[in-house]
Amino acid sequence: MGNKKYSIGIDFGTESGRAVLVDVATGEEVTTSVYNYKDGVIDEILLDGKTKLRPDWALQNPEDYITTLKITIPDLLKNSGVKSEDVIGLGTDFTACTMLPIEKNGDPLCFSEKFKSIPYAWVKLWKHHSAQPEADIINETARKRNEKFLSRYGGKISSEWFFPKILETLIHAPDVYEAADRFIEGADWIVLKLTGEEKRNLCTAGYKAIWDKHEGYPSNEYFKALDPRMENVVEEKLSEKIYPLGGKAGEITAEMSELTGLLKGTAVSVGNVDAHVAVPAATVVDTRKMVMIMGTSICHMVLGKELKFAEGMCGVVEDGILPGYFGFEAGQSAVGDIFAWFTKNCVPPEYHDEAKRRNSSLHSLLEEKASNIKPGESGLLALDWWNGNRSVLVDADLFGLIVGFTLITKPEEIYRALIEATAFGTNKIIKTLENSGVGVDEIYACGGLPEKNKLLMQIYSDVTGRKIKIARSSQASALGSAIFGAVAAGKNRGGYDSIEEAAKNMAHLKQETYKPISENQKIYSTLFTEYEILHDYFGRGENDIMKRLKKIKQTIIKNKS
Amino acid sequence: MGNKKYSIGIDFGTESGRAVLVDVATGEEVTTSVYNYKDGVIDEILLDGKTKLRPDWALQNPEDYITTLKITIPDLLKNSGVKSEDVIGLGTDFTACTMLPIEKNGDPLCFSEKFKSIPYAWVKLWKHHSAQPEADIINETARKRNEKFLSRYGGKISSEWFFPKILETLIHAPDVYEAADRFIEGADWIVLKLTGEEKRNLCTAGYKAIWDKHEGYPSNEYFKALDPRMENVVEEKLSEKIYPLGGKAGEITAEMSELTGLLKGTAVSVGNVDAHVAVPAATVVDTRKMVMIMGTSICHMVLGKELKFAEGMCGVVEDGILPGYFGFEAGQSAVGDIFAWFTKNCVPPEYHDEAKRRNSSLHSLLEEKASNIKPGESGLLALDWWNGNRSVLVDADLFGLIVGFTLITKPEEIYRALIEATAFGTNKIIKTLENSGVGVDEIYACGGLPEKNKLLMQIYSDVTGRKIKIARSSQASALGSAIFGAVAAGKNRGGYDSIEEAAKNMAHLKQETYKPISENQKIYSTLFTEYEILHDYFGRGENDIMKRLKKIKQTIIKNKS
Repeated sequence: MGNKKYSIGIDFGTESGRAVLVDVATGEEVTTSVYNYKDGVIDEILLDGKTKLRPDWALQNPEDYITTLKITIPDLLKNSGVKSEDVIGLGTDFTACTMLPIEKNGDPLCFSEKFKSIPYAWVKLWKHHSAQPEADIINETARKRNEKFLSRYGGKISSEWFFPKILETLIHAPDVYEAADRFIEGADWIVLKLTGEEKRNLCTAGYKAIWDKHEGYPSNEYFKALDPRMENVVEEKLSEKIYPLGGKAGEITAEMSELTGLLKGTAVSVGNVDAHVAVPAATVVDTRKMVMIMGTSICHMVLGKELKFAEGMCGVVEDGILPGYFGFEAGQSAVGDIFAWFTKNCVPPEYHDEAKRRNSSLHSLLEEKASNIKPGESGLLALDWWNGNRSVLVDADLFGLIVGFTLITKPEEIYRALIEATAFGTNKIIKTLENSGVGVDEIYACGGLPEKNKLLMQIYSDVTGRKIKIARSSQASALGSAIFGAVAAGKNRGGYDSIEEAAKNMAHLKQETYKPISENQKIYSTLFTEYEILHDYFGRGENDIMKRLKKIKQTIIKNKS
Repeated sequence: MGNKKYSIGIDFGTESGRAVLVDVATGEEVTTSVYNYKDGVIDEILLDGKTKLRPDWALQNPEDYITTLKITIPDLLKNSGVKSEDVIGLGTDFTACTMLPIEKNGDPLCFSEKFKSIPYAWVKLWKHHSAQPEADIINETARKRNEKFLSRYGGKISSEWFFPKILETLIHAPDVYEAADRFIEGADWIVLKLTGEEKRNLCTAGYKAIWDKHEGYPSNEYFKALDPRMENVVEEKLSEKIYPLGGKAGEITAEMSELTGLLKGTAVSVGNVDAHVAVPAATVVDTRKMVMIMGTSICHMVLGKELKFAEGMCGVVEDGILPGYFGFEAGQSAVGDIFAWFTKNCVPPEYHDEAKRRNSSLHSLLEEKASNIKPGESGLLALDWWNGNRSVLVDADLFGLIVGFTLITKPEEIYRALIEATAFGTNKIIKTLENSGVGVDEIYACGGLPEKNKLLMQIYSDVTGRKIKIARSSQASALGSAIFGAVAAGKNRGGYDSIEEAAKNMAHLKQETYKPISENQKIYSTLFTEYEILHDYFGRGENDIMKRLKKIKQTIIKNKS
């Protein structure tokens, strides 16, 4: 292996931790190791086997993160034959906001005998959704007080984020709040474990904890208005020091060296978020290029040079993706999930049989059949709100809609209409960004979907009227973390001194590029106008039928149980 | 068999002729015989094997009607052991408008060597849909001339009806128009064949040929405005004499006696239409009771004492169902068809497997699963326009819609929402009738659906807030024809002197009655309000997206071929 230098990236996901060993010079992904969390998502019963969780709850066991380090890093070294002295850096990314209360020494509160049966003491996973009432308080209080920060988050703080999760604990488990020395993002906690240093990263602070480079956190008065006990939450339970992305957080400790096989002193990058870290891994280190991380949902990222407020963004954070840029984040709450719902619930046996006969997946069969349908030919149009609408309406109480059924409507026509609907959703986000002054010339896609479905990518290109390039790596987040690991090491130790330089060498695109087909683009432009009319009619209060149906539904279910 | 007297009813349907032998005293259906038409629906190629038909065309061979008589009547006599002298009457009903050009002697023009390869010379079946351009001319001309008759037909003459079909022949095959001595409904032609007498019935004249008891046919000026050659169409090609329902058209001829085994002189009733003839067979001979003939579509019939104009009715005809009453007809263009579409296209293999395992039909399985869902619980709402909307919007360019999808929406929830949507459609018709002064206190159902799906009937009762009674006979049209046959015979020959009296003895209900469940009724009343908002938004021009999607679709398909 000579003088080659390597960096390791670890992506801490929802169900597993994925580690990759990358050649720093070329970005070649030498080997990968995945650890499926032993306890996965804890959403029914605590590990004590008796404490039941309410619906909407989703916890994790921090032990799983440590085990990921312990299993995957030695595995990478063993499989590749790379020596630990040639591994110059380690970068990590995490789901977010995934947070936990810890003790003064950094140990999770849930490890203690006293708190191990208290759900609030465990890691609240990003999709822990029970803090909606607290998010409502946070939003209402902010609106009443005209807090400027709301505009940076599309007008709404999500129940998934940091302070709703803290407030929930304060209200329902004040002793946990009291006992917590700090609340910390998983992204920062794993770095703390690796290096012994608490270096809170700017990305989660900005996107999940309402922190801004100039404004800092919301004021103590604001927190006091939420709950008097929370007045000094920042001073008492967080840290005011926030570290920029691309920096070095510290070095592998002796303890971690023993656990992982990496050399003590190996550089570790400041923590990052799975979606955001993928941006340079998709080669994007400049403005006017949208990165789409496409999977069960889509996360949209754009860099800009100026602060702009676009409707319904998840957030705009200065330096939040790359230092020197405003990072704009938007999202669609269900994309791949909708197609999965459709294939599971709405496809008749003949199609399953045909797929089996042709040794193809059901998705591939539907894709093939749907490819033979022209845009507009089915007469169907859908609103892609199966899991609400994140951007640009920021409304969880919206639902899916399909219009245009006839007695000869075919499953592949519905399937295609659903793909088109999600593409219209992305186009709505692009248009909203551009109307606010954030340009998008090209799209860069990564994640699971682009590799699986060419039709989908072509439709996105036709609908948005933009070229779409595809990241070469099928694990853009882990690669992104490796890039940040190489930057943490720095040029002197064989890495890079800037993210741009690292990305230029380590990030690559596939050869294939999707280009809009002008004939399709024309029809989709007409159909998008129709989509927008329905979008506004059902989404902006003209006909709140979706909310009313939900209320009826909730009453019925409540009375039934 | 002693002194028992019998009547035969024959229902000439789309695919077959169904005959039933009925005990005149009790209405007992002694035996049934069905003849599946040899040539069925001719919609691709003429019997010459070379003349191709355009899409939208649907023809029949009149020979099939004669064969029905020849096969089924002897079959009834043989199977029952009933002697022909005990058969006192024969009634018939037909699909409508199903019409043909005939020669002076009554022979169909299509039987002649000269015309047998001309599609226009054959029987145009009710669902022959290619005369839409001619219907457009007929409607536009009527609107321009402020013809009063339009209001009796919900403002629109359908392309399925008599004069659009005639005008189509005049325009595209003037030689057929010229050669035709008369154009005649199948309902009247079969009576002409049986009795040698041409006695055109009031039902088809009123509902399909724009005839009114007081006004007669539209004026010669009107027909001239359509096409100068059509000025005297009534005098030249029809008959101005129209015969009331319940009357005797004539008696079985010697030739027909030989063909059928019935005695020469057996009474034959004036012709009738399949849906309308079912009304007395469902025991309804009075006002404020709606009869629903429920199958692939629904036909709604109500009797009234006064002329009222309700929006979007198929027609209101004085004496059109029963003498002495105004007969109101409305309809939904797809009901059972929607459920059939759903089970064919949208149900995953597990459901098929479960149905098989439990030795149940897929419909029954879905019905059972849907029964466990409370009204409003799924959060779904649909517009039942898979085949356009007949009443009350009279608009074929409307399409189906479903709103409220989530990632956990289940097939049985969609199935139930579709049933509910068709019930809302029926309720919209009832409300429209009542708002126009045509009261509906109770509902009487017949046809294939009520026997198959109890959940469906309960939902209709809950949605409409009305009791629903079910006709005992599973072949209400054929039984209705037998009732009219008994009336044609008259009391002196062992029958009845009035339809009311005949129905009282021969028509029966099942024991089970569906009654609205007040808890469900309340929720459905709320959901119906939501249905009406969508109904008006998409159906009355506020958002014509469905029409625009159709136009796009048509352009694409045109360019593709």
